[in-house]
Amino acid sequence: MKRKKVESEDAFIKELAKRFASPIEGRQTSKGRGARGAQGGRAASGVPAVAPAWRRVIKGIGDDTSVTLLSPGSVLLTTTDTLVESTHFERSYTPARLLGRKALSVSLSDIASMGGTPLFFLVSITFPGDIDRRYIDGIYDGLKSSSDEFGVPLIGGNTARAPIVTISTTVLGEVKKGREVLRSGARPGDAIFVTGTPGDSALGLTVLQNHGLKSLKGRWKKAVLRHLDPVPRLSAGQALSRQRLATSMIDVSDGVALDLKRLIDASGAGAQVHLRGFPISRELQRYCESTGSSWAPLALSGGEDYELLFTARPKDEKKVAALSRTIGLKITRIGRVTETGLNIVGADGRPVRLKRLGFEHF
Amino acid sequence: MKRKKVESEDAFIKELAKRFASPIEGRQTSKGRGARGAQGGRAASGVPAVAPAWRRVIKGIGDDTSVTLLSPGSVLLTTTDTLVESTHFERSYTPARLLGRKALSVSLSDIASMGGTPLFFLVSITFPGDIDRRYIDGIYDGLKSSSDEFGVPLIGGNTARAPIVTISTTVLGEVKKGREVLRSGARPGDAIFVTGTPGDSALGLTVLQNHGLKSLKGRWKKAVLRHLDPVPRLSAGQALSRQRLATSMIDVSDGVALDLKRLIDASGAGAQVHLRGFPISRELQRYCESTGSSWAPLALSGGEDYELLFTARPKDEKKVAALSRTIGLKITRIGRVTETGLNIVGADGRPVRLKRLGFEHF
Repeated sequence: MKRKKVESEDAFIKELAKRFASPIEGRQTSKGRGARGAQGGRAASGVPAVAPAWRRVIKGIGDDTSVTLLSPGSVLLTTTDTLVESTHFERSYTPARLLGRKALSVSLSDIASMGGTPLFFLVSITFPGDIDRRYIDGIYDGLKSSSDEFGVPLIGGNTARAPIVTISTTVLGEVKKGREVLRSGARPGDAIFVTGTPGDSALGLTVLQNHGLKSLKGRWKKAVLRHLDPVPRLSAGQALSRQRLATSMIDVSDGVALDLKRLIDASGAGAQVHLRGFPISRELQRYCESTGSSWAPLALSGGEDYELLFTARPKDEKKVAALSRTIGLKITRIGRVTETGLNIVGADGRPVRLKRLGFEHF
Repeated sequence: MKRKKVESEDAFIKELAKRFASPIEGRQTSKGRGARGAQGGRAASGVPAVAPAWRRVIKGIGDDTSVTLLSPGSVLLTTTDTLVESTHFERSYTPARLLGRKALSVSLSDIASMGGTPLFFLVSITFPGDIDRRYIDGIYDGLKSSSDEFGVPLIGGNTARAPIVTISTTVLGEVKKGREVLRSGARPGDAIFVTGTPGDSALGLTVLQNHGLKSLKGRWKKAVLRHLDPVPRLSAGQALSRQRLATSMIDVSDGVALDLKRLIDASGAGAQVHLRGFPISRELQRYCESTGSSWAPLALSGGEDYELLFTARPKDEKKVAALSRTIGLKITRIGRVTETGLNIVGADGRPVRLKRLGFEHF
């Protein structure tokens, strides 16, 4: 047990509190809040305006707990994720700032897959005592950047010494009661959709593992960024919930095949996926051509795509297509819900067997 | 980056979900809940009844996020804490079950110090791949035991491999809007109180470090248990908030002196503490007599007491004493809030200088 003066631990928390200070602190109390506080969105000046969630923060980081408000008629969504060095990432090929961004994004993705709006987050960080302080600063910068981008204030945090870097984030969000999209709502006959182009993140990881950080500037840099800085599909998730289009939804953290299995298991159903027309990126296609390998394992079992995988009634397929155009995000039908089993049909019409469904971080 | 089949990670989550399964699962949906679900408290049969918080869980662990409800008119309290092996504990002298209990209790203590009621918790656990599985089972057992005791359902969790054991808990709670007790409300003239007998936990740690687990059965076993299995002072915190007695409050995690400093700093005030009449346990007194040492460093700077330190108006002192009798918990006046500075007055009336205010885990 190493015990030293607490002042330095307080210093870390104070620095977090300073970096994530409320832009409207002191202008509100528990009583008489509400109309006060700045508007959300982006101000005309181009300077980011105050995120609406700040108006819900009565007391942010710095007391024993945070004190926050939810909207009437909403339910609370909560999720927690941990990124662990040498299990989820290697410092050698993970820029600190992007690591900070990703630590928040992976939890935001869970909120997206419920159709929810993220409100606040808490973070616990561990790192070795002799770490280059710039790496920690970079993580803080990344967290802040993502926090600002998605309007999600930090409301709690702590740091502790450990032999490795770990970042544990908990995100709180909300959704109108009854509009939460669970994994369990898929019914036989429903169409299965996925956003974006799964497999890019796995391609990016492969390139990073082989070539290190210089691949951020190389031929596959788009895929590398998909791995290091995934985008939580919040607008898509929220629209699918608001328009009551998704009957079930999950985010793709461990590969389309495995996460689809989780979804159909929760729904007590099966699924058939067709590789013909499956949405893969031009980059993944080129990479697989250049290496003479098949894209299916990366696209189906690659993991860390943080795309949304959801089901919808067949009659709503046109509405899904319209939504895809509106939000400017590719959404592709990849199969249908069946009674039982998970079947993958190759481009040649023959069944495909995957060596493994997905990847884990254990 | 180690990537293996995800099935085993899912297995861990499934086991968590099974252990923490809702006793009323399937009996409620997002619509039409409320009156249904079991009552809180303890059933006449002696079997623990369903905790009231379960009635707020629309979807617990097992989906992308949990889905829960707050009471109307309440604000949300959120706190996160991490216990890290060889920083906060050593496996050699920390029984797994008590480690699990403590991981939850330290966050519950933060809710107590806001005057709140804990509702739910999330947990992230890391451990080495080759750990004795019984240690992990023990941690789960401890978490479950504390979760049941305080009626706080688990609503999210994850596990990951790491070279060391870490347990990160996030607890959500609530308190009636405007009744949250912050650190910042102390005013000059207020009396300063502390619950229990600070210093016991530090004594317990000292004994554990010197004699290991056999000290759980030795002469100082009470103090050892105070360290390994601290009791969050939820009833006291809630009563102080409900009766509007506490003007400010903090839980003692890093020693009375340091946490008092944090409280007066947040309040923009000072404090004077008197060692005459300071509440120390008979055990701590005996230990210090037997070793010829002073009890003040352990009682003031020991840390991990998880007692409540709060201020109240002098006119409310009798009400505080009455509350102490009602809930059966020692509450002692130890000083008063001043304009500035932190002064400690010894039993002989002379000023005391501490070598350090408190301890940290960094």
